[in-house]
Amino acid sequence: MELIPLGTSSASIVRDRGLSAYVLRDKGSVFLFDCGDGTQFRLLKANIRRSRIKAIFISHLHGDHYLGIFGLLTSMFLEGRKAPLTIVAPRGLADIVDAHPGISSSDLSFPVQYVNLDEDLELEEVYREPGLQVSTRPLEHGKFCVGYRAEKKPEPNQIDGKLATALGVTDPEQFQKLAQGLPVDTSSGYTVSPDQVRYQTGTVFAYVTDTRPCQGGLDLANNADLLVHEATFSKSDAKHARDTRHSTTDDAALLAKNAGAKKLLLTHISSRYRDTVFLENEARAVFPNSEIAQEYRTYPIVPERIELQISPFA
Amino acid sequence: MELIPLGTSSASIVRDRGLSAYVLRDKGSVFLFDCGDGTQFRLLKANIRRSRIKAIFISHLHGDHYLGIFGLLTSMFLEGRKAPLTIVAPRGLADIVDAHPGISSSDLSFPVQYVNLDEDLELEEVYREPGLQVSTRPLEHGKFCVGYRAEKKPEPNQIDGKLATALGVTDPEQFQKLAQGLPVDTSSGYTVSPDQVRYQTGTVFAYVTDTRPCQGGLDLANNADLLVHEATFSKSDAKHARDTRHSTTDDAALLAKNAGAKKLLLTHISSRYRDTVFLENEARAVFPNSEIAQEYRTYPIVPERIELQISPFA
Repeated sequence: MELIPLGTSSASIVRDRGLSAYVLRDKGSVFLFDCGDGTQFRLLKANIRRSRIKAIFISHLHGDHYLGIFGLLTSMFLEGRKAPLTIVAPRGLADIVDAHPGISSSDLSFPVQYVNLDEDLELEEVYREPGLQVSTRPLEHGKFCVGYRAEKKPEPNQIDGKLATALGVTDPEQFQKLAQGLPVDTSSGYTVSPDQVRYQTGTVFAYVTDTRPCQGGLDLANNADLLVHEATFSKSDAKHARDTRHSTTDDAALLAKNAGAKKLLLTHISSRYRDTVFLENEARAVFPNSEIAQEYRTYPIVPERIELQISPFA
Repeated sequence: MELIPLGTSSASIVRDRGLSAYVLRDKGSVFLFDCGDGTQFRLLKANIRRSRIKAIFISHLHGDHYLGIFGLLTSMFLEGRKAPLTIVAPRGLADIVDAHPGISSSDLSFPVQYVNLDEDLELEEVYREPGLQVSTRPLEHGKFCVGYRAEKKPEPNQIDGKLATALGVTDPEQFQKLAQGLPVDTSSGYTVSPDQVRYQTGTVFAYVTDTRPCQGGLDLANNADLLVHEATFSKSDAKHARDTRHSTTDDAALLAKNAGAKKLLLTHISSRYRDTVFLENEARAVFPNSEIAQEYRTYPIVPERIELQISPFA
């Protein structure tokens, strides 16, 4: 899997950043997390085909997180989409879409399946397909808001390179045999079977915005390979963060640390900060593997250990 | 007055052009004609302050002409706008806005006055302020759609330079005196009074999209100083234009000619045409003062004769 941030700004629009939207790409499939105003233009700029989008996950019904969905649906309709689309969102979005002529459920050329989230949810699986599962938990933002966790099972041919090396596998051809499901004999005479070195855990992406630091976010981020967590404010503006139910840089970093996340992308940065290097440094003081999310950059989401994925046709 | 096109594409989004939106600027006041998805970002890029917008005129409820209004209202709210806003649109838009939490009439920090247009309208004045008046007429697009005509009265200190010159005024100081409302004696002994050389007619901007060529468009464009008329298709795609109730380049040019318009901007160009020079040439063969509208360019809207506007404080 890989993540491409398309909009990393908080609610006020600015010249150099977009409103919340994140592409999770898994081979040819695209999953969109939030869809702020203007998202379809940013998908176009990033060369991400609308037709690849299988599901859209909306965190909450503040405009900077959902207003791009109407234009996106319109464009999907105009290009004659037939494939079904899943939209996971707080209850209410379906009614807003239906209020728009031309893109209501009965107008569209493709089926839209809504998964409507209610305020009493605790933990809910909201999407599943072979190898991939997305669940949601409530966050704490005043307005009803949820975070998401996408878990991908390991590929059948994905082996743990570090573990295989520790068992004495050294030859690239031997790695390839293991990936093909065949046992190999090491130089020390020991036989390594594929089952011994297959990845047991998959990869986890967690999306936590908008919220003050909370238990729901911590649970979603548990052992995540990549955690996107909002950090609207500097730690020096902590009072303002509390008042508006947002997080600071070190709130996000501390949560990443406590959750055992592998990497943290800080996002939803307030437009008051023109220079963001100091924000990154604030987070790194608490959780070194922190970065300010960069729009249009591709972040691979890989297991903690070295990934060695060998195609049987390599 | 001056016009700044912000989006000149037809419904399909493309990389290099935006969806319908046109700024009519009159000194510090801004009037927005249509507001396609993404308009607020284009206003930002064009350095046009949202706070200057006094009224928004929507042609019809196809997404590429109105979907940007929700983000724009959200941003106006976030910046604490207090000034009233007028929204002129086919009946129905107010209900769609009200379906969005946070920007319904009761949520906003400023009053929105809707002028709701009904399908049986023939000619209606929809906006008036000192010196400026906007009227609407129905177009023919299948979906209920209207065009607009903005008429600005001449400035009190605006004199017709060509006429004054013809009467023997040659000295810049004499022009200035006339603009200040004082009579001047010419070198031939003749006295020219300000009333003789004041502009009797103002300036007219007409906005006609989406539509097949029709009487409503012709009436709106009558003697317009600047006519923006859709030309979705080349004249070689006339059948397709008829089928979809759009206009071709020479439909627009012929209408401009018949209406006595001074200048024609062609717009709402289909994404099928990557090179638009030939479209411009098609129109110019019928109406020479035709141009493809260029985004972010400022088009002055001036009376046909040379405008000589002299500040009394110059």
